[in-house]
Amino acid sequence: MKHAPALARLIEALHALPGVGPKSAQRMAFRLLQQQRDAARELSRALEHALGAVTHCERCRMLAEGALCPLCASPARDDSQLCVVESPADVIAVENSGSFRGRYFVLMGHLSPLDGVGPDQLGMPQFLALLEGGAVREVILATNSTVEGEATAHFIGELVRARGIAASRIAHGVPFGGELEYVDGGTLAHALQGRHGVS
Amino acid sequence: MKHAPALARLIEALHALPGVGPKSAQRMAFRLLQQQRDAARELSRALEHALGAVTHCERCRMLAEGALCPLCASPARDDSQLCVVESPADVIAVENSGSFRGRYFVLMGHLSPLDGVGPDQLGMPQFLALLEGGAVREVILATNSTVEGEATAHFIGELVRARGIAASRIAHGVPFGGELEYVDGGTLAHALQGRHGVS
Repeated sequence: MKHAPALARLIEALHALPGVGPKSAQRMAFRLLQQQRDAARELSRALEHALGAVTHCERCRMLAEGALCPLCASPARDDSQLCVVESPADVIAVENSGSFRGRYFVLMGHLSPLDGVGPDQLGMPQFLALLEGGAVREVILATNSTVEGEATAHFIGELVRARGIAASRIAHGVPFGGELEYVDGGTLAHALQGRHGVS
Repeated sequence: MKHAPALARLIEALHALPGVGPKSAQRMAFRLLQQQRDAARELSRALEHALGAVTHCERCRMLAEGALCPLCASPARDDSQLCVVESPADVIAVENSGSFRGRYFVLMGHLSPLDGVGPDQLGMPQFLALLEGGAVREVILATNSTVEGEATAHFIGELVRARGIAASRIAHGVPFGGELEYVDGGTLAHALQGRHGVS
């Protein structure tokens, strides 16, 4: 059956959200227009507000309100370590691990020449300017473990080393708590290749 | 780590959507503010527009734009059958089955005295006025197969029969294509109880 036009438009707009299929979109629309009209109004306004207020951090390209993101503005972080990630969600993931106290640089993607994404789109001029600052002693390449992520890490690693700064890549192997039996072959191959001596 | 305030507000608003947890909400917010800014703008406007335009159908209480929903406005439907359901999503589900050509009445809930939902909240005055019209020959009770749904069906069935109109309840049993081995006990008990002779 056909929905009323305003309802159909709302379902279509919700369907554009990542991970939301047509059925979930319909369920959301019904809920928003019945029991959650206040939540619907707040969502509409929060979107409008965020579109105006949220831009990219001038230093690390993280999503930020104002010129600098909270991480770049914080004086408590270690300027000597710079962790390079593909997306803002990766920053959150590394932060939540609680094991890194340095700064970040967000590429907002990975090298993908066919899609027109080259060094400029990944903010390389800005990144190199950061290195020129002189505070960075080590660049940690934490791009995804995909073909594109590896290629991007390799490319940036070359740039970093050419400037006499150490570059490292995060380790890949069996996930913490993972059982060998259920780990895929590619991961196991990585884990074997990356083995290290025990004392 | 703490998000920028506008971003945190957007994540919170997305988290209010049914079936969206904090992690999905964050992923949606990042996506909307990076690659999908047009979609974000459209979603904000679609919500605003729908909140203003979508109300309830005067006849069947379905979500509608204007006085009557498309189903009530259609001259092609059978006025003698009235299908009573709990929610607009149930109307869509019955419509998609393609096996009903009558009219609907949407309760927008079920009897729940503890939550203050009585006959008036379910639109009973409006429903009885519809029956007074004289066209309805059968009321099909298609409320959910839950304790509240059954109680609501029983209550409305009494009202309908008291007016000399036939009331029926949709069948409950083993789902089409379902294997007995995997069907729960309650459903099987229903299926056995509702058995009918074969010719």
